[in-house]
Amino acid sequence: MVEENKISIAVIKRLPRYYRYLGELLANGVTRISSKELSRRMNITASQIRQDLNNFGCFGQQGYGYNVVLLYEEIKKILGLDKNYNMIICGLGNLGKALSNYYKFDRLGFNFIGLFDISQEMVGTTWNNIRVGCVSELESFLAENEVDIAVLTLPKTSACKVSQTLVNGGVKGIWNFSNVDLHIPDSVRVENVHLTDSLMVLSYGLNEG
Amino acid sequence: MVEENKISIAVIKRLPRYYRYLGELLANGVTRISSKELSRRMNITASQIRQDLNNFGCFGQQGYGYNVVLLYEEIKKILGLDKNYNMIICGLGNLGKALSNYYKFDRLGFNFIGLFDISQEMVGTTWNNIRVGCVSELESFLAENEVDIAVLTLPKTSACKVSQTLVNGGVKGIWNFSNVDLHIPDSVRVENVHLTDSLMVLSYGLNEG
Repeated sequence: MVEENKISIAVIKRLPRYYRYLGELLANGVTRISSKELSRRMNITASQIRQDLNNFGCFGQQGYGYNVVLLYEEIKKILGLDKNYNMIICGLGNLGKALSNYYKFDRLGFNFIGLFDISQEMVGTTWNNIRVGCVSELESFLAENEVDIAVLTLPKTSACKVSQTLVNGGVKGIWNFSNVDLHIPDSVRVENVHLTDSLMVLSYGLNEG
Repeated sequence: MVEENKISIAVIKRLPRYYRYLGELLANGVTRISSKELSRRMNITASQIRQDLNNFGCFGQQGYGYNVVLLYEEIKKILGLDKNYNMIICGLGNLGKALSNYYKFDRLGFNFIGLFDISQEMVGTTWNNIRVGCVSELESFLAENEVDIAVLTLPKTSACKVSQTLVNGGVKGIWNFSNVDLHIPDSVRVENVHLTDSLMVLSYGLNEG
């Protein structure tokens, strides 16, 4: 019914935001909403909202608005949030530690089952009840455990090599915080979070006259 | 000469990546490069590269390619990286701590001059040689110090209120890691890093048939 393959990446990138707003509506007991009211809250045009949501079938009815529960559940499914994911972190520096502590991931169904680092100081310690393994143990860990997503928070010098190990080990997606573009097969999904790139876009904005 | 205002946000978002690749070329002593070779390295089409870079004047010459130094310096200027910025962090949880330790920011000209938190445990401690202040001290700090960029790593419950204090205090840009959309005047730039949104886009990808 829902033809997910035809949805553009721009729309996909907006979906988590819809999901967030719809979740807040539900938490406040709101079960239906007009595109106009959603537009006001989300600060995007009502026509953009209608266009986006039309991609997923007809959740809006003239004179009624959107059924918040149906829409929320459908977006949840499309984003794959009706499943659980096994995650590992490669690189337990400050950022890796911060991500491992992020309480929301667990609530969304993303569960950490392994933590890996390269420094002798970290390896062997316990972090969030998980023993920190050495990156050199990754291969055997991946052979024994099904890992859906690897969070890559290693320096870029080691990130490329480790990404190959992750690919060979059958990891399905890499959440890449290393400031380098990974060259891996299309079959493995990569979502980049390049923090310095984001900061540069902000500094551009400060100078844009 | 360069008409920055006409450059689309999509191009701007690609600039840091060009800057990164050009920097690596320079570090390797490469002073000129064809769009074809840059295309191969960056994994985007040569025509996209020519189109993007044409926005900033003619750095490419038929049969010569791009002058890497000139292009690098121009992009640096466009991104505002030829200046220094005073930054503060509001929210010294794990993520705030990780960002405060990120060595690259300093090298790019982004300098932390203040750190603020709400928890009694953090306030008064010293972190990276800076005394951690209480968020309630923000107003007076902003009155005495020129702050270009505030990093917002507070929970969303307090992020909205603090963003108002930042705006009133004359902060020019907010780098927002709180999982909430800020409603502030257009005169203050906001760059959002919604981590859970990014993870959801990845989980979408894992399920995309």
